Amino acid sequence: MSSYFERMKCMKNVYLNGEQVNDLLAEPAFKGAAQAMQTYYDLQKDEPETHCFRDEQGNYAPISLMVPKTIEDLRRKRKSYKAIADISFGMLGRTPDFINAALSTLYAHSHFLGMDQYADYQNNAIEYYKFVKDKNLFIGHGAINPQIDRSVSLGEQTNEFAGVHVVSHDLNGITVSGAKMIVTLAPIADELLVFNMPGLRPGDEKYAIAFALPVQTPGAKIICRKTTVKPTLSQFDHPLANRFDEMDAYLVLENVHIPWNRVFIFQDVEKSNLFYDRTFIRHHTGHQGIVRGVSKAELLTGVAIKLAKMLKLDQFVNVQEKLGELTSSVELLKASIILSEETAHLNEKGIVTPNIHTIQAIRYHFPKMYEKMIKHIQSLAAGSMLATPLLQDFLSENGDMLMAALSTGEFDGQERTKLLNLAWDVSGDSFGQRQLVYEYYHAGDPMRIAANHYLAYEKEEMLKMVDRALNEKSELLKV
Amino acid sequence: MSSYFERMKCMKNVYLNGEQVNDLLAEPAFKGAAQAMQTYYDLQKDEPETHCFRDEQGNYAPISLMVPKTIEDLRRKRKSYKAIADISFGMLGRTPDFINAALSTLYAHSHFLGMDQYADYQNNAIEYYKFVKDKNLFIGHGAINPQIDRSVSLGEQTNEFAGVHVVSHDLNGITVSGAKMIVTLAPIADELLVFNMPGLRPGDEKYAIAFALPVQTPGAKIICRKTTVKPTLSQFDHPLANRFDEMDAYLVLENVHIPWNRVFIFQDVEKSNLFYDRTFIRHHTGHQGIVRGVSKAELLTGVAIKLAKMLKLDQFVNVQEKLGELTSSVELLKASIILSEETAHLNEKGIVTPNIHTIQAIRYHFPKMYEKMIKHIQSLAAGSMLATPLLQDFLSENGDMLMAALSTGEFDGQERTKLLNLAWDVSGDSFGQRQLVYEYYHAGDPMRIAANHYLAYEKEEMLKMVDRALNEKSELLKV
Amino acid sequence: MSSYFERMKCMKNVYLNGEQVNDLLAEPAFKGAAQAMQTYYDLQKDEPETHCFRDEQGNYAPISLMVPKTIEDLRRKRKSYKAIADISFGMLGRTPDFINAALSTLYAHSHFLGMDQYADYQNNAIEYYKFVKDKNLFIGHGAINPQIDRSVSLGEQTNEFAGVHVVSHDLNGITVSGAKMIVTLAPIADELLVFNMPGLRPGDEKYAIAFALPVQTPGAKIICRKTTVKPTLSQFDHPLANRFDEMDAYLVLENVHIPWNRVFIFQDVEKSNLFYDRTFIRHHTGHQGIVRGVSKAELLTGVAIKLAKMLKLDQFVNVQEKLGELTSSVELLKASIILSEETAHLNEKGIVTPNIHTIQAIRYHFPKMYEKMIKHIQSLAAGSMLATPLLQDFLSENGDMLMAALSTGEFDGQERTKLLNLAWDVSGDSFGQRQLVYEYYHAGDPMRIAANHYLAYEKEEMLKMVDRALNEKSELLKV
Amino acid sequence: MSSYFERMKCMKNVYLNGEQVNDLLAEPAFKGAAQAMQTYYDLQKDEPETHCFRDEQGNYAPISLMVPKTIEDLRRKRKSYKAIADISFGMLGRTPDFINAALSTLYAHSHFLGMDQYADYQNNAIEYYKFVKDKNLFIGHGAINPQIDRSVSLGEQTNEFAGVHVVSHDLNGITVSGAKMIVTLAPIADELLVFNMPGLRPGDEKYAIAFALPVQTPGAKIICRKTTVKPTLSQFDHPLANRFDEMDAYLVLENVHIPWNRVFIFQDVEKSNLFYDRTFIRHHTGHQGIVRGVSKAELLTGVAIKLAKMLKLDQFVNVQEKLGELTSSVELLKASIILSEETAHLNEKGIVTPNIHTIQAIRYHFPKMYEKMIKHIQSLAAGSMLATPLLQDFLSENGDMLMAALSTGEFDGQERTKLLNLAWDVSGDSFGQRQLVYEYYHAGDPMRIAANHYLAYEKEEMLKMVDRALNEKSELLKV
Repeated sequence: MSSYFERMKCMKNVYLNGEQVNDLLAEPAFKGAAQAMQTYYDLQKDEPETHCFRDEQGNYAPISLMVPKTIEDLRRKRKSYKAIADISFGMLGRTPDFINAALSTLYAHSHFLGMDQYADYQNNAIEYYKFVKDKNLFIGHGAINPQIDRSVSLGEQTNEFAGVHVVSHDLNGITVSGAKMIVTLAPIADELLVFNMPGLRPGDEKYAIAFALPVQTPGAKIICRKTTVKPTLSQFDHPLANRFDEMDAYLVLENVHIPWNRVFIFQDVEKSNLFYDRTFIRHHTGHQGIVRGVSKAELLTGVAIKLAKMLKLDQFVNVQEKLGELTSSVELLKASIILSEETAHLNEKGIVTPNIHTIQAIRYHFPKMYEKMIKHIQSLAAGSMLATPLLQDFLSENGDMLMAALSTGEFDGQERTKLLNLAWDVSGDSFGQRQLVYEYYHAGDPMRIAANHYLAYEKEEMLKMVDRALNEKSELLKV
Repeated sequence: MSSYFERMKCMKNVYLNGEQVNDLLAEPAFKGAAQAMQTYYDLQKDEPETHCFRDEQGNYAPISLMVPKTIEDLRRKRKSYKAIADISFGMLGRTPDFINAALSTLYAHSHFLGMDQYADYQNNAIEYYKFVKDKNLFIGHGAINPQIDRSVSLGEQTNEFAGVHVVSHDLNGITVSGAKMIVTLAPIADELLVFNMPGLRPGDEKYAIAFALPVQTPGAKIICRKTTVKPTLSQFDHPLANRFDEMDAYLVLENVHIPWNRVFIFQDVEKSNLFYDRTFIRHHTGHQGIVRGVSKAELLTGVAIKLAKMLKLDQFVNVQEKLGELTSSVELLKASIILSEETAHLNEKGIVTPNIHTIQAIRYHFPKMYEKMIKHIQSLAAGSMLATPLLQDFLSENGDMLMAALSTGEFDGQERTKLLNLAWDVSGDSFGQRQLVYEYYHAGDPMRIAANHYLAYEKEEMLKMVDRALNEKSELLKV
Repeated sequence: MSSYFERMKCMKNVYLNGEQVNDLLAEPAFKGAAQAMQTYYDLQKDEPETHCFRDEQGNYAPISLMVPKTIEDLRRKRKSYKAIADISFGMLGRTPDFINAALSTLYAHSHFLGMDQYADYQNNAIEYYKFVKDKNLFIGHGAINPQIDRSVSLGEQTNEFAGVHVVSHDLNGITVSGAKMIVTLAPIADELLVFNMPGLRPGDEKYAIAFALPVQTPGAKIICRKTTVKPTLSQFDHPLANRFDEMDAYLVLENVHIPWNRVFIFQDVEKSNLFYDRTFIRHHTGHQGIVRGVSKAELLTGVAIKLAKMLKLDQFVNVQEKLGELTSSVELLKASIILSEETAHLNEKGIVTPNIHTIQAIRYHFPKMYEKMIKHIQSLAAGSMLATPLLQDFLSENGDMLMAALSTGEFDGQERTKLLNLAWDVSGDSFGQRQLVYEYYHAGDPMRIAANHYLAYEKEEMLKMVDRALNEKSELLKV
Repeated sequence: MSSYFERMKCMKNVYLNGEQVNDLLAEPAFKGAAQAMQTYYDLQKDEPETHCFRDEQGNYAPISLMVPKTIEDLRRKRKSYKAIADISFGMLGRTPDFINAALSTLYAHSHFLGMDQYADYQNNAIEYYKFVKDKNLFIGHGAINPQIDRSVSLGEQTNEFAGVHVVSHDLNGITVSGAKMIVTLAPIADELLVFNMPGLRPGDEKYAIAFALPVQTPGAKIICRKTTVKPTLSQFDHPLANRFDEMDAYLVLENVHIPWNRVFIFQDVEKSNLFYDRTFIRHHTGHQGIVRGVSKAELLTGVAIKLAKMLKLDQFVNVQEKLGELTSSVELLKASIILSEETAHLNEKGIVTPNIHTIQAIRYHFPKMYEKMIKHIQSLAAGSMLATPLLQDFLSENGDMLMAALSTGEFDGQERTKLLNLAWDVSGDSFGQRQLVYEYYHAGDPMRIAANHYLAYEKEEMLKMVDRALNEKSELLKV
């Protein structure tokens, strides 16, 4: 058994449907995703030139942990991100490379964290990076505070699970309690990085923290949502839903002790709010995210095309238009990735950061494109997706009849059914809709993404253009 | 046990996941819907003034079977439709009143069916109506031919399951084979009305038939799709999905004998194409359908509002706008129902038919409105829907903690979770998405609905207006 | 010369492009609209049964001034509104019936205005109603305060033209200064009703007024925007734009004296905010507005249809779908009007008020429908609208050639060109875009319309439905 | 007087409103655009390093005529395109660089044209390229056949102006008659390149031609559409509309003689259909077109931002979202340009062609983005755009009052008005709407653009992904 699988064997604080999960790898809700993680590790062994770099000691480490110094480095990281995303067709968004990308830039910009009387946070980040790199761990993260009452600030909440907060601290470390929601893939990660998205306000100090902890820590519980896996059905019936449910968990911490060397921010509202942006975590995880999006977009566009072909609909120009809307969206997504790399920023220390304006631009538009993909698939397959027998029907006395009845062109009854099942999984099944919700909200409220794009974008040239349009005089024109 | 439940006990040709279902009422995939059907029958007993009319013999019969003679009759039918829809919040679209509405108008316009050397189809329709009325049966229907190859006509298909066709006929009746898809609620209906939607072409004669048969008929098989019921989870976890899955089945007929007195159209392409419209089945089932839509629209709008209130989002004007988009859509839906009734057509025999132009108008627009309801619910609940523990978690050792952790304002942890579960069921769960697909396609391709609205609509006045705009001369204006 | 034209001859404080207009009826920017107003008066003479009612003295008065006592009264008013709208194809939104509808309900609910130490406002409203009725005047209105700085309240504005405010008052009346924007059709109205839309705040008292004044009043100036009339071109070139520009004017008042008997609200923020709603002006002008919308919708839908036919595009199903989207929208608009009437409210005094929820519902949706009409027209005519010769070209040496070159089917070159010109006028010309902006904003910010629909709508039943979905237990289902 | 202006002095076959234009430079409809053309020529003198390259003789020639050999060459051409577009804020789409880009690639791929018994078309293209380069001419083009009857092919049309066709040919050349529509900027061009877009069918041979001719040719007439210039108003009133109307003309040819050395395709349907694509004209003009789009997008986004700031609306997060939608769209547009260059194709002769898939992708999406820009501007400025006095009002006795009344924050009354006028010009004026129609349709029917994107796009990888999703077996998962 691989070391990743062995590590997973130890996890005991994961709860699913009211019960503690004894064997993660045997649990249908997790085993598909765990298998994908193992494939992630296998890729490093099988294709180290693509998926690894050599660290200062000359050892191979996952390339997602590499600090990029050139645009070519970004391209190399992209190539690995894409191959990792392809394992799950982009359906697993929080594979280890996601937080690795974050840790590499946190390491490179660790000076932002500084130090105080309690700890040297900069050094903590450096050491944590090395620890993760040397052990080649899978780090998940918890950043989103439960949506309890959006009309008051965290510090004013009476509900102590509205976020994770400091209960006390001493020479050894800090004691924290509280909760984070949508801690994706937490059940099958090694450790978690806990921090806040921007938006804390003065008075929220005790919530203004960042730290790391092993998933398996006393006082920490991982409580899962409903799985989208249907254990009584087969991969034929749910080609994707039964393989790649990406579990979102509710993380509860009750008086959990965190040693100082795993603390990165301590009761500092300003640092907490700037953490995501000033360490460029947002930039690098955003880069990974839009690259992953390509896998997803390619799969769904492919499904739409194959459906149209199977149902002989691709000869109609209005169907072709829909398909062209999808292929052209894929192209715009790819264009954004290239621009984010080609206009990357090189800082004085020789570190390269992808262009966040491009990343956020496509982040705002991509979920709309993805929704169109789902919509067009639903429109092409329509009712046919609701008229598919199950695998056991094909294996039953009715099997021969169904094979004949449901054949169309070169597709036999099973092939036709399986493609429709795949179409349903990505568009109508709980699995596919969770994927849609994830695309829309995993990077925060889309309204805020757009608002911030406007606020942060370089607007000077555009405003000068307006001034020129208002004030420039034409020679020929008298007035 | 009620007579409906007793009748259901006899059904043996329903297949689910490869197995013949022995006890429909015990099967999780059906028992919620069957319970709703029983409630449908109970309503007639409990509120006969609303749900029944007295037939020529003075006996109570379901008002959905009444032939309407006045606009007030339409309003009475509407009131009953709405109360029936409310049983399932509109999620069961093919309750018995749906085909009852069809049978009442088929009965009233049975002359359309005529007769030939084989049978008196007009009389068959009259007798069948009386049979259904006297037994108070639940009739489902199969109208949609499987989407096999849309580029050739039915008669040219090599796949003999591309529709239901005549194999042979003799003095006793006809023998049919073939298939229909999305025969909704067939597993728990008494009989099925089988016919075609318009669109057959010359050469499709053997497919051009209409007839009725008991569900439990030798040679007839009902093969179900994947259920959206999750039998291991509770009503708490899936407040609607575990109660109201409306099973869509694939109906296969293999050399099934239909006696002549149950045949309504026999190998007549023109009659088959006109059947739906000329008997006004389209009008009356459409009327039932848009009334049912109100229940659904009210529930989803209510869910959106309650979510906004629970999450304290309803104070923001942009959220209020979204909610107002939904409430105003509900209002337009209601307006359409009123107009379809107020402008109903009274024919020379004193029979009243609701205005199909209004019905088709809202049919085209309603799915878009419904999709907005889903979208706004997803946008309000967003990630929170993916962060809900299950009932068993609340009943476990973690229960007290979760009750506290997930409370918000006046909602305790369970209440908050259950509302989010309801939001997920209607918007993200397979159940909710099946409902969306159903709204979009249950009345045919929306593109065709709109195209036909244009083709059938009274355009003369609008074109005259254009002529006037082009040709009218103003006195003051010289040119 | 008619009395209306004679009255218009006296107007001298209208400014257009920097000059005082000496003869309104000779000015191209006004004469088309003035002609339409004359037609409005003619209708009353020619069809008094439709357009008039008999007042208490037994005299004919415009039916728009009738206080409705029955739903049938609303239907009668609707019939007249529609015929008036048809004069201009709905392009003139502020015809006299608009404020007449307001005055009739203000009269009927004048008790809301009350009295104080300065004046009996209730009586003022009654007397003003009689004055307008007896003279059969054309009353315009100014309600929108110039958009100067939306971040501070009126009372805090340093710009004294941010609204109309009281400068002083004495025994004879009040002196007002300030401005209103988009005082539509003011140049050719007899009098103006000046008031505020809701939204004033404590501290805005001096702006919190309502009163009437003759357009031709010392100190009052009407300053026009750019006209969309092209005086050098013909009705052929601009079939609508050259006839029905509905001038929006900027009204400036500089120390204008208003006698007390023309004041309806005096420095009362609460009354000013409630004025529009509590006197039901919003309801009745809204009713007129959506009826007028039908004319507009019919014309544009007709233009789209005729274009599709002329260009032989109406055979394509995707074009038919677009046209069906328009015809079905027209139907929903009509449905809303009927529902607003059928569910009108009858108060204890026997006065009937149309249902504002229905009116606001369609008000929110109609501009989107109208925009679709414009979009589909642009999509059908596309570049062809940009390739039309002018009338003078047809009259020139090139005329014969153009007649031949541009003929298509039964349309000769001029007919084809004129239809394309009409398409451009309603969709691409400044005229058509002003109409679109008007539809979107004439009843206030659409975001607020929707938000208020949500806030005011009866939500109890929908929320009960949610509660039932959450709490109802199924008998068969165990959990 | 410049040589360009001098050349324009000779043009005599331009008709506007029924009259032959005697002095193009004095005609308000043209003089703004002509001025912009002069600026185009000035740029070459003032900034030759940016706008010129050295041809084989070592002479400066416009860089748009350069045959690109490297990606850097494409970037250089882009830089010049952008600066040229900036002259008119992208409002002039058919500046000389547009057809220059076409001629350079036609020259580089002239072998496609071949030769026959009449002429050496390849050589004709080479010589014409040199002629244009040496004279530094402005070439317009006519490609769109008038939309007469879309249900029959060109060859079947009875209307002989449905396209341009061969009347006869002899040793000297060919004689052509017929028409093209939307021959943009033709009135102020030197010569025209006449060809067809793809879509001709067998039987259309006599229409299947391509050739060049001087605008001023006997038998050729340029008949203009309505101008959007308002000659009685000022640049203040119409900051853009009065400067940059890009005239679309109807080109009529009556027995026009074209010498063989100006003919490029002669009665060859296949060549005519492939012309646009196989010579890569589509690719290079597309590249110019999307670069020009940036100017337009920047101006409109800038206008939206400045409006929001002026009206103090930019503090609201929902307004920020709208602005962010625009800034992120600008970014996607830029991304597409970069990708089209970075993935340019290098052929065996060392010639570089930009990636058409990327160009067509953004071409499909950009008009929708542009429409959103217009929509958001209309939503921000709303009624205020309809409440602006004219320049003459500010210069009149009312001027001081208006300056005060309409001031807001740091904007005085004139500045506020002028910005609103600019907003109207780009969004609501005929000028702005013509620009929108142009964006949507100048590259053909958007439905076809998307359909062709789908048809031409590399789909193999996406379909393989679907196959993998269908067939890949997971190790852990049993079925």
